[in-house]
Amino acid sequence: MDITQYTTQLIQNAKQASVALRALSAESRNQVLLRAAQLLRSSQGSILEGNLLDVQQANQQALSKSMVDRLTLNPKRIEDMCVALEEIAAFADPVGKVLESRAMSNGAEISRVTTPIGSVLFIYESRPNVTIDGAALCFKSGNAVVLRGGKESLHSSRILAKLFRQALQDAQLPADAVQLVDNPDRQIVSGLLQQEGGLDLVIPRGGEGLIRMVMEQSRIPVIKHYKGVCHIYVHPSADLSQVSAMLINAKVQRPSACNAMETLLLDSALETSQVNSWLNDLLAHGVQLHGCEKTCAKFTQVKPVTSMDQFHTEYLDLQLSIRMVDNVQQATEHIEIYGSSHTEAILAQDITAQEYFLSKVDSSSVMVNASTRLADGGVYGLGAEVGISTDKLHARGPMGVDSLTTYKWVIRGNGQLRK
Amino acid sequence: MDITQYTTQLIQNAKQASVALRALSAESRNQVLLRAAQLLRSSQGSILEGNLLDVQQANQQALSKSMVDRLTLNPKRIEDMCVALEEIAAFADPVGKVLESRAMSNGAEISRVTTPIGSVLFIYESRPNVTIDGAALCFKSGNAVVLRGGKESLHSSRILAKLFRQALQDAQLPADAVQLVDNPDRQIVSGLLQQEGGLDLVIPRGGEGLIRMVMEQSRIPVIKHYKGVCHIYVHPSADLSQVSAMLINAKVQRPSACNAMETLLLDSALETSQVNSWLNDLLAHGVQLHGCEKTCAKFTQVKPVTSMDQFHTEYLDLQLSIRMVDNVQQATEHIEIYGSSHTEAILAQDITAQEYFLSKVDSSSVMVNASTRLADGGVYGLGAEVGISTDKLHARGPMGVDSLTTYKWVIRGNGQLRK
Repeated sequence: MDITQYTTQLIQNAKQASVALRALSAESRNQVLLRAAQLLRSSQGSILEGNLLDVQQANQQALSKSMVDRLTLNPKRIEDMCVALEEIAAFADPVGKVLESRAMSNGAEISRVTTPIGSVLFIYESRPNVTIDGAALCFKSGNAVVLRGGKESLHSSRILAKLFRQALQDAQLPADAVQLVDNPDRQIVSGLLQQEGGLDLVIPRGGEGLIRMVMEQSRIPVIKHYKGVCHIYVHPSADLSQVSAMLINAKVQRPSACNAMETLLLDSALETSQVNSWLNDLLAHGVQLHGCEKTCAKFTQVKPVTSMDQFHTEYLDLQLSIRMVDNVQQATEHIEIYGSSHTEAILAQDITAQEYFLSKVDSSSVMVNASTRLADGGVYGLGAEVGISTDKLHARGPMGVDSLTTYKWVIRGNGQLRK
Repeated sequence: MDITQYTTQLIQNAKQASVALRALSAESRNQVLLRAAQLLRSSQGSILEGNLLDVQQANQQALSKSMVDRLTLNPKRIEDMCVALEEIAAFADPVGKVLESRAMSNGAEISRVTTPIGSVLFIYESRPNVTIDGAALCFKSGNAVVLRGGKESLHSSRILAKLFRQALQDAQLPADAVQLVDNPDRQIVSGLLQQEGGLDLVIPRGGEGLIRMVMEQSRIPVIKHYKGVCHIYVHPSADLSQVSAMLINAKVQRPSACNAMETLLLDSALETSQVNSWLNDLLAHGVQLHGCEKTCAKFTQVKPVTSMDQFHTEYLDLQLSIRMVDNVQQATEHIEIYGSSHTEAILAQDITAQEYFLSKVDSSSVMVNASTRLADGGVYGLGAEVGISTDKLHARGPMGVDSLTTYKWVIRGNGQLRK
């Protein structure tokens, strides 16, 4: 295969499709999503057949149990994808929303109206359901998408993308509104990233290596979904009855998620006996504790960190870094140095401490008396999410369909000139 | 000079200053802007002295008259800068605006609040007043800025940046909130662009070569201010009494601006005698006309374009490309291929044609019966502008201070966990 020719064709197809999508009504877009759900339901057999190839391959390669589990489809999971399609069809239309509108001093009317971004490259992990989510969210927002899932799920993604394209064709719309990169060669990703004036946006999700590669190579704008080294700071004024449940929820409920707590900041004024019981609760849930010198001196159940660098670690596992700080200022200073600007929380009843934390911590989500695990598009009421942006531009934190739009300025005049 | 050391220091200073700016009140920020205006007024002598060095150098190097004119300061222009500072101080605060706020289903309160982006690299032409505008707009929005003006204005920028830093120091704030790259070596720009995890944003303004260089090198997000190949399409339903004034305004009023018309699309159903008179009006204003084959066949005052590629040209001069099209569909197809997504206008009374044009043309500003020259932050009511973004992400079209902010999600709970 000639890679340049292949990537050029993908880009050209996406751009052509995106022009066709521009003037499409919300009604037409939603019909396609509903039709895709129908097709998935009636094609359960062939989806499971394709998926079986991925699962067999994964088992041959002795991939981890959790990896194989995320790969595996069954009738329940296929039905979940159909329901997701129907839910996305039911969302309010993100395109054509009037963000502001007013009369100009020259008498013309000015408005700012949301429009699709155009064409999106979506890079994601080996999770077949994300193929459907990605296609649906991009199409709902009027964008053409090039999907590039993890290679372990290629057979499953192939049949799912084919069914979505069938739904487009059934509606006499260009199938290339949804394209799948049907080859795991990373050169293809590079080719897509490096063509200036090519696609409008790339959204990479996945491991640090992948994101770094995208950042280094891309000449198109990137919205990163990077690591989450999330902190909880426990202030002396915290409601002591809530702390343990909060720490367990943030660390244990789903340690592999990017919004799980990775570092606990303990105020040195907290009661030793209280802290002891929280740490024992964490240990009882199987969490390994790694602490700074002061923490280890006070709490023998904590093992020392190998160096301060360990506080940069995103464990994604039942492990936790712990540091003792003297006040909320030191807590925010630690977060400034070691945080990843994802999600941080303060547990405090003291309003001054809360407000200081909220204003000083520059993260996409900042929380008072709530679990970092809440940082999620669904929980935030955005419906399905593309991911959680750790960038500061365009979209920050959980990204729903609105994040997949831009805007244009519309001027309606009757002969206005520049003075 | 060790360039890596210099750029690393600039970045580190900017980041430190941006942390200090984070919790600063609008009142304190506005005081600095007013103080800077005072200092500029009382330092008129030394500003003019510094500027004289630039002007002498420009004359020695025989720079163009318009270039020397843009460089030259006088008491009136210094006063204009002071007024700009005072106007920006009077703007509404772009930081801390609550974009949305609601109760979550779990009882916590969620809001989305604007925050500064952090640190900005602003690259701009040899115009001393932009040093003050750039410093003021970034500081107003709570950002630390690294200013990199054209080398021809370095002496002027040096004294202006020094005065702004003085205003910061007078308020006991970190002077490094505003830094000037005090050396024209382009390696410094490269160093600033390539440090990943460095500055948060680069806004380049200037020639195509500069922007291309930034795009190729940058590992930090870029908001481009690229070229404007702006179109006006005259539909047969146009109000004929307005057309000529509109074309003259869009082409002649300031041909060097990026929002000036570069291509005129004439509907083939327009009356030949009418078109004749418009073209003659343009000629009378000194505009050279370059047309497609059909245009030249009908209107002898038009010279042929050398090739279709000429329709990509941003003349920035009293020259105009003209193409004849058969309908609004062909007009939008031409714009799709040859436009730069900056600003396009349709002159038409027919509502169907207007709406088709508005929905199909994917430009940052799309206008009905108005001059493309209106695409401007001031005209749009944004106050001063950083520039006109030709990108689709984060900010599109005229960028005011709001475009220099991002947002964070703020969750105020009372013990909410993830279910």
